Amino acid sequence: MTLPTGFADLPAPPYYAVIFSSLRNRDDEAGYAAASDRMLELAARQPGFLGAESTRGADGFGITVSYWASESAIAGWKHQAEHAATRAYGRTHWYDHFELRVARVERAYGKTARSGTTR
Amino acid sequence: MTLPTGFADLPAPPYYAVIFSSLRNRDDEAGYAAASDRMLELAARQPGFLGAESTRGADGFGITVSYWASESAIAGWKHQAEHAATRAYGRTHWYDHFELRVARVERAYGKTARSGTTR
Repeated sequence: MTLPTGFADLPAPPYYAVIFSSLRNRDDEAGYAAASDRMLELAARQPGFLGAESTRGADGFGITVSYWASESAIAGWKHQAEHAATRAYGRTHWYDHFELRVARVERAYGKTARSGTTR
Repeated sequence: MTLPTGFADLPAPPYYAVIFSSLRNRDDEAGYAAASDRMLELAARQPGFLGAESTRGADGFGITVSYWASESAIAGWKHQAEHAATRAYGRTHWYDHFELRVARVERAYGKTARSGTTR
């Protein structure tokens, strides 16, 4: 089954999730959007990257969850040089506040309403 | 420190996360909004509920992460009667697709940009 746009098509658990919730300030919309696209492009090349889901409301509050095969894959991404530089920049320029949680996904399922497909 | 609106103020890990990503259809905006508020109100009374963060973009794709003290707290919420009924209704009436992942949060941190506070 092909998932609708926006959903990460993940393998069966276990795997890891990095849950990043953030409140954007109003600054640098173009710079932020470009960096956001670039980070996703880089992450997708990173060993152990499984997928990501991301959304942000009109109030500036957003949640991005990226999924990884292992803790070591998360560490690899954390230390990727361009990502580390962008992250450091972003933390002082783009966000009023953020919270980051790293979690081990134990179980998962999904459903498409119209077909009733359950995985 | 009081967190900005939208963020869940959680204890130190470990705890559990239910990551619910969904694509809304265009139907029943008022019914959905009322049920969403009601579910949050009910969840907040549930034993082991720690907090929740939620957002949805203009494209209808949303992510809600609720946080729980234990797997048994998640099971308790899953079997709460009104929640179970609303969930069953919502799955056929409000969403084109959803994915649900249950994860154990291993570590967490946050930062407020202006004060530089790190927890």
